[in-house]
Amino acid sequence: MRESELLALIELRSQDLPAPVIVGPGDDAAVLLFGAAQVLVTVDQLVEGRHYEQASATLDQIARKAMARGVSDIAAMGGRPACAFVAASLRAGFTEADELFERMSFWANTWSCPLAGGDIAVVDGPTVLSVTVIGSPHPGRGAVLRRTARPGDRLMVTGRLGGSLESGRHLAFEPRLAESAWLCDELGDRLSAMIDLSDGLGLDTSRIAKASGVRIEIDAAALPLHDEAHGDWRAAISAGEDYELCFTVAGEPPADTAPNGTSMTTIGRVLEGEGCFVRTDDGETIDVADLGWDHNAK
Amino acid sequence: MRESELLALIELRSQDLPAPVIVGPGDDAAVLLFGAAQVLVTVDQLVEGRHYEQASATLDQIARKAMARGVSDIAAMGGRPACAFVAASLRAGFTEADELFERMSFWANTWSCPLAGGDIAVVDGPTVLSVTVIGSPHPGRGAVLRRTARPGDRLMVTGRLGGSLESGRHLAFEPRLAESAWLCDELGDRLSAMIDLSDGLGLDTSRIAKASGVRIEIDAAALPLHDEAHGDWRAAISAGEDYELCFTVAGEPPADTAPNGTSMTTIGRVLEGEGCFVRTDDGETIDVADLGWDHNAK
Repeated sequence: MRESELLALIELRSQDLPAPVIVGPGDDAAVLLFGAAQVLVTVDQLVEGRHYEQASATLDQIARKAMARGVSDIAAMGGRPACAFVAASLRAGFTEADELFERMSFWANTWSCPLAGGDIAVVDGPTVLSVTVIGSPHPGRGAVLRRTARPGDRLMVTGRLGGSLESGRHLAFEPRLAESAWLCDELGDRLSAMIDLSDGLGLDTSRIAKASGVRIEIDAAALPLHDEAHGDWRAAISAGEDYELCFTVAGEPPADTAPNGTSMTTIGRVLEGEGCFVRTDDGETIDVADLGWDHNAK
Repeated sequence: MRESELLALIELRSQDLPAPVIVGPGDDAAVLLFGAAQVLVTVDQLVEGRHYEQASATLDQIARKAMARGVSDIAAMGGRPACAFVAASLRAGFTEADELFERMSFWANTWSCPLAGGDIAVVDGPTVLSVTVIGSPHPGRGAVLRRTARPGDRLMVTGRLGGSLESGRHLAFEPRLAESAWLCDELGDRLSAMIDLSDGLGLDTSRIAKASGVRIEIDAAALPLHDEAHGDWRAAISAGEDYELCFTVAGEPPADTAPNGTSMTTIGRVLEGEGCFVRTDDGETIDVADLGWDHNAK
């Protein structure tokens, strides 16, 4: 059974959960209600040999990526992180636990997400860092979900796409916290849906389309690509680990660039219907599912 | 480096954390503040070959223990669980993921702690289930910490101790949620400190003593032992995985038994000073650290 199918097992059993669960599995984070406060919770695993190679990644890069993935999930909800918990299964013989935790603590603090607890075990297998990040939604906008895109909205993306693994950017990306907060400030409820691009634009946009019950079309010519993508939009749509924000906007778009300089690009539109498609330069319409991506990617 | 030393690395870097962290590492759960609401968070790992043996434990037992440990941590804070998140690293070739998650969901729901999210990876190593449990403190008493025992308090324990591993009880224990809620209801602030017994009475009581800056004496003759402990209080003090509540009470004790029949036994006292000691039948006083326990236990 593939991991994506396994994850579906969690979603299957977590529909219509009782209070305090407002949003369960199937978004970038769960939304819980305590008193009058909404709380975001996301859990991610960073697996040696899968999300990084011990031989080529530095401890600082491993620590950074372990924390950044969860922080990026909070950004994708329009939230800000509050604190994090790390459950570490360390490969037997791994001697740099102290430095690893020092660097995780450093990056956690960098993103205002201090380590507030954890658990450590030593295992005869790959190192796995399971990171739980707790956060708060934007105080004005509230949590931005995947399921609320509407026909007529535009599809947008922060920054540029493609070549993350080849360039090593997946080990050094900056979670889009500032951009997320700015979009919530500027657009309020017009920021209708959002996701972070961990598994590639095609798969992740399909998730917005499916959750919202809409059709989404992406314009190939509009995609802002990194140089490392060599103009290959097909590869860029299928490649994962961009960790940019993909979002839908009702009405006028925000400014072309956020105050910190990150670009905001319209790349498509939301329509009535279902599915996710790419319109090519020559007017062809391709189902993104036919472009191929790694279904084993989470 | 031992796991207990590794855990100290987390605590070392998590002193005086900023809001919303009220209590960070070093208690059974962290205490966070969102709006006016306090939220409890605990993370625990269940490791194949360490906390259970694949060959001898059923899937139902594994699932139950994975959930019960975190729920017990919430009980030890005087809280009630709200929901849980599971990050599972499954041994490659493990074919029963569906049933495992079904049983985890069952036990989570049994303790009013539904699965609200998770992450799954397949690894070339032992299965590790990292469970994050979110909860709320008792609405009247608030979170019951380890650090608030006072000289003059009595030391008490729920149920009976010893022989948990030998008897298989560690795979079938009932988290003391009802007892915890009843103690908070009955005693309020007189319930001065609490911990759940995961690593053995000696080590866990030492944690209360250290956190509270007090000396604790345990009366060997007063210890309520399970039959499987064969009257060996030394073994029972060192043995882990009882998952009973150990707590301190100012003034009069609660009733001898909770409404559900669980016994409440006074086993010692809190004094000025430091350290944790056992008074034997013949009046000898032994430092529990000299009784020996598995320092590799978490």
